[in-house]
Amino acid sequence: MKARVFVTLKESVFDPQGQTIADALHTMDYDRVRNVRQGKYFELELDVKTVDDARALANEVADRLLANPVIESYRIDVEDETIGVSK
Amino acid sequence: MKARVFVTLKESVFDPQGQTIADALHTMDYDRVRNVRQGKYFELELDVKTVDDARALANEVADRLLANPVIESYRIDVEDETIGVSK
Repeated sequence: MKARVFVTLKESVFDPQGQTIADALHTMDYDRVRNVRQGKYFELELDVKTVDDARALANEVADRLLANPVIESYRIDVEDETIGVSK
Repeated sequence: MKARVFVTLKESVFDPQGQTIADALHTMDYDRVRNVRQGKYFELELDVKTVDDARALANEVADRLLANPVIESYRIDVEDETIGVSK
């Protein structure tokens, strides 16, 4: 089963990388891009049977390794390949 | 309107960062994590009126700045805040 983990800096944390991208886009005349936040994205291939197991495992892995809970938050999408639906 | 851009290395491109994360997880006894691919994630706040405009702008920005089309592919999700639905 596949789980997708999106890690972003919390809203209150300054994101210099995103700011730099936004500035670059403005110099390229993309003025309609108001703001950019950069994050990390992980695709995990999990050897589990149920969507609940996948979500629990992805949560644990995100908490322990992928995200720094002090400054980052994360969101998890689980894709059940057997029925092809994101949950 | 908000657009989310997910940039990942193409399947054929080796991902040492993801491999390192997978190895770290295996040493932490997360053997049920079979494989990890790392990518980048961008949240763009766009000053556009329609979902189509948002998608077109996000596409252009991803092509020109956010992704390297030689080795990376990307996916775009547009979230229409006025109706609160992802398209």
